[in-house]
Amino acid sequence: MDILMGVGRAGLKSGGKPDLLVLLLPQTCVASFLFTKNHFKSASVLYSQRVFKGKVRAMVINSGNANCGVGKDGLTHAELMAKRVAERLEIEEDEVLVFSTGVIGKPMPIGDVLNAIDSACGLLEPLDLKRASEVVSTTDSFPKYDFVKKGRLEVFGFAKGAGMIHPNMGTMLAFVFTNADLREDVIERLHRDINERTFNSISVDGCMSTNDSFGLISLGLLKEDLQMVSEAVEEVSLSLAKKIVQDGEGATRVIKVHVKNASIQLKARLIAQAVAVSNLVKTAVFGKDPNWGRIVAAAGSTPFPIDQFKLKVYMGNHLLYDGRVHPKAIESAKKYLEESQEVEITLDLMEGKESWTYYSSDLTYDYIRINAEYTT
Amino acid sequence: MDILMGVGRAGLKSGGKPDLLVLLLPQTCVASFLFTKNHFKSASVLYSQRVFKGKVRAMVINSGNANCGVGKDGLTHAELMAKRVAERLEIEEDEVLVFSTGVIGKPMPIGDVLNAIDSACGLLEPLDLKRASEVVSTTDSFPKYDFVKKGRLEVFGFAKGAGMIHPNMGTMLAFVFTNADLREDVIERLHRDINERTFNSISVDGCMSTNDSFGLISLGLLKEDLQMVSEAVEEVSLSLAKKIVQDGEGATRVIKVHVKNASIQLKARLIAQAVAVSNLVKTAVFGKDPNWGRIVAAAGSTPFPIDQFKLKVYMGNHLLYDGRVHPKAIESAKKYLEESQEVEITLDLMEGKESWTYYSSDLTYDYIRINAEYTT
Repeated sequence: MDILMGVGRAGLKSGGKPDLLVLLLPQTCVASFLFTKNHFKSASVLYSQRVFKGKVRAMVINSGNANCGVGKDGLTHAELMAKRVAERLEIEEDEVLVFSTGVIGKPMPIGDVLNAIDSACGLLEPLDLKRASEVVSTTDSFPKYDFVKKGRLEVFGFAKGAGMIHPNMGTMLAFVFTNADLREDVIERLHRDINERTFNSISVDGCMSTNDSFGLISLGLLKEDLQMVSEAVEEVSLSLAKKIVQDGEGATRVIKVHVKNASIQLKARLIAQAVAVSNLVKTAVFGKDPNWGRIVAAAGSTPFPIDQFKLKVYMGNHLLYDGRVHPKAIESAKKYLEESQEVEITLDLMEGKESWTYYSSDLTYDYIRINAEYTT
Repeated sequence: MDILMGVGRAGLKSGGKPDLLVLLLPQTCVASFLFTKNHFKSASVLYSQRVFKGKVRAMVINSGNANCGVGKDGLTHAELMAKRVAERLEIEEDEVLVFSTGVIGKPMPIGDVLNAIDSACGLLEPLDLKRASEVVSTTDSFPKYDFVKKGRLEVFGFAKGAGMIHPNMGTMLAFVFTNADLREDVIERLHRDINERTFNSISVDGCMSTNDSFGLISLGLLKEDLQMVSEAVEEVSLSLAKKIVQDGEGATRVIKVHVKNASIQLKARLIAQAVAVSNLVKTAVFGKDPNWGRIVAAAGSTPFPIDQFKLKVYMGNHLLYDGRVHPKAIESAKKYLEESQEVEITLDLMEGKESWTYYSSDLTYDYIRINAEYTT
């Protein structure tokens, strides 16, 4: 009852690295998929959105080419990829989903891709999360995967992503599996909810991808308490999401922005996001500068009013502002910034009970180098 | 009938540079002021918003200290500044507006500021636009001013700004004057409209300031055709706005994003903005990389649908995408990027008649250096 994987080389990545992954599930599984809300979608996303009807048997993922911005050829190529996988594995074509990630606007060498599918399907082995993440990675500097086991309940998954990260639904490519049995209507609700608090609450560069896809797949083996499944799926999803931020292009540290005691949740969320994505906050963290003025300027920039004479700003445990300045706390906050790999910024709005947490990374010279030199 | 200015030194800027400017108008003038929509506003903005009733006689502007995030003391200090100017110039206190720009969260040394006001008011001379811009500048690398004369009509102004630029109304500090006589209701409408197409259509770093203020002041000397006044005011305002972008922290070039043939204007505007503020587009321009995939990914990220099989993308005159890829155009676009100080990106949505233009600057190593090293 293992998930099987096959790996191929289509020459999409330089140096002949593996760039094609086929995943075969033990049977047709109930699943939920969320795709980018970007209107300029990858043809692979358009294809998978069209064929997915709540159940999936196999997935084919290529890296190094986004299959995006290539006109209607992209749709044909996605369909050919699904068809070839279905033929080789003798399964239904409409139970095969297609995912792509890489450079936008590069025509897909479809012959090479189909050959790579043939060899991937010819040698299937048990799913290795680390290896699967490596095969689908592009600018990632480390593989992203996680596994939790609580009693008999298992949740595990892998992801890729480092740049063009500002998900508006699922992020980049992420696949989370559980042995728990989830009904179709339940899995979708659970999936959307967890997605909002994990992949939809991270940003590297404020840039929404054309290829984001996040799948949650139920292997249907275990009747388990829904609350427990939900917690385990959220744990794995958040772990993968945070790994993407940690690997943010050029990033040296993770920024965790926690907004608490807001009157409504949307307000907490938009303020947390505004602070987390601010270039000025991100460069200040890189410069180890406890410049809370940039934090409150970002917090004030959403459509929601805030009371500047009431709110409190913390960096770690250091209270920097509460309607008045605390010059002594600046020095201890500076030390905190120098010593912390994960920098926690807390805004206490002092007005209600709602909260939200958003994750991003700092903005560094290396982000500029990576993205100025990453040529078309 | 000259506008007079006085300059003082309050020690807010390093090296004893002039940091305080008093402007005295020849009489009480009809004017319109737009202030930042940031909810964490400078106390000077809060004060000026409260006292301004459509007419102004004098303005006092300090640089080097934002008078922001300092609690209720900030309001007291703004009022003291206005009161001192009114006393020295023997004018009404509620016709004096106060503006501040500089670091957030630094207490204002109000004694020094009041002394600087005394010396500024003690030696008034005719307004020198270049000098005025220099006095109010912070991280600016050059003064920003412009003057147009059409027949007897005169419009002129000055501004400051280089970082924390993503105006949501007026930008940073900008003051535009005209000798034309404009009624109160007319000037406000004209002002808002022109502001949307000029200061509200620029971005350096996507970060909304706490101190943005843009004033349009009618000296009331000349009856002139409104259309002509409007054009001249827009010309000067756009010139100042573009200078701010040109001086964007670390910027090497101006990016002009033109979205045309949209079904509605808001759509053109949001798409132009999304492309102009995208970190990935901005780093690509810095890297002289005609990476149009990042342009369409940004264009697709707004709430408005776009048809990826129909839209056209140009860099300068080079057609890079129109539902299909044009590999040959990439080379000529690369040459265009290497040679142009102002890079024009055009998206033709091919669906209607509305258009919008948005200006930003590229994102460079120097932006990181300036903002990682700019300590609190």
